[in-house]
Amino acid sequence: MRSLLILSGGVDSTTLLYDLLHQGYEVEAVTFDYGQKHKKEIEFARKTCKKLNVPNSVLDLKILNEVAPSSLTRDSWEVPEGHYTEDSMKQTVVPNRNMIFLSVAAARAIAGGIPHLFYAAHSGDHAIYPDCRPAFVSAMETALHLCDWTDITLHAPYLNLTKADIVKLGTGLGVDYSLTWTCYRGERLACGLCGSCTERLEAFRIAGVEDPLTYG
Amino acid sequence: MRSLLILSGGVDSTTLLYDLLHQGYEVEAVTFDYGQKHKKEIEFARKTCKKLNVPNSVLDLKILNEVAPSSLTRDSWEVPEGHYTEDSMKQTVVPNRNMIFLSVAAARAIAGGIPHLFYAAHSGDHAIYPDCRPAFVSAMETALHLCDWTDITLHAPYLNLTKADIVKLGTGLGVDYSLTWTCYRGERLACGLCGSCTERLEAFRIAGVEDPLTYG
Repeated sequence: MRSLLILSGGVDSTTLLYDLLHQGYEVEAVTFDYGQKHKKEIEFARKTCKKLNVPNSVLDLKILNEVAPSSLTRDSWEVPEGHYTEDSMKQTVVPNRNMIFLSVAAARAIAGGIPHLFYAAHSGDHAIYPDCRPAFVSAMETALHLCDWTDITLHAPYLNLTKADIVKLGTGLGVDYSLTWTCYRGERLACGLCGSCTERLEAFRIAGVEDPLTYG
Repeated sequence: MRSLLILSGGVDSTTLLYDLLHQGYEVEAVTFDYGQKHKKEIEFARKTCKKLNVPNSVLDLKILNEVAPSSLTRDSWEVPEGHYTEDSMKQTVVPNRNMIFLSVAAARAIAGGIPHLFYAAHSGDHAIYPDCRPAFVSAMETALHLCDWTDITLHAPYLNLTKADIVKLGTGLGVDYSLTWTCYRGERLACGLCGSCTERLEAFRIAGVEDPLTYG
């Protein structure tokens, strides 16, 4: 079965890529360049796809930086440290990012005759991002069934998993986590301090898996 | 009340702009450059905004031509003539265009603290485009309420009007229809023959209003 996966190059979507291939899906990946400082995410998405022989398009959505700036895209905005607080979350949110990604990926799926669209929202995201919550995913699923003559089905199979569950699952699938990027800062090594790194390190710790990434 | 309007530069959204101003809304407009051959649409959107002193951003979504080509964007694809048939419709559809426009416009609205998002889908479109039908609009309304901490309300006030109704309404509001563009071909004068021109001419005829546009 043909499927299109939104692949960021992070832990969750990379695990989902391995998972779909393991389930026998024929997968194409789409990665969005929205001007994020953490370009390594895109580089890692490409590397994983190359390693797994999966076609991957990187689509330019840098316009988002003009439409709605956030600390993920603006050099002059600092990425905050430590566990997410309400304020630090909101600073790192590109508003409506998931709907934009889903809508563009769906256009690609429709044009390519690909009936299944996958994205890796998970339960750890729920508290943080409104557009990772089940109610949002369900509304988008409905909208995607209605947007075209072609029937596109949205799947978010990790919606009820934590990030630690995903790391455990991925470890069983042989995911190469040294090719996944999580840090929101645009440096050579992951900082280990931003909200995103904090969440990743905690997930590996709970999963009892060693994170192969080098932290600065 | 602050509102953001998706303004294509065509008859429907231009009428809605006049309508919202008449109702006392403070309006900002957003226009999408998705690589359409009919650049005049964008030029006319700009001219109308200038005339009415409404701020307008033109956002570059030319990436859509790469994501999902259609006869509206590909030079080598001919825009078909005459009343829409199922085939000719599908050729002129940029898949999932409305969801993409709504999602990007919503990001802009959220970033700018604008609570009301307007678009001018109308009943004449229903048969033609799945993403102009009430069920789709309703699903998107739900998704937009859920996509962020900010509450964004989607309005499609022309959903039950025909294009002729819109022309009648706009004529009463003093819309300058000489600054609206409808033709899907990228020529100096509107062709009067493509599906889009055919529909426009019919709407003016039914409304009993003279179309001020020159046809080639």
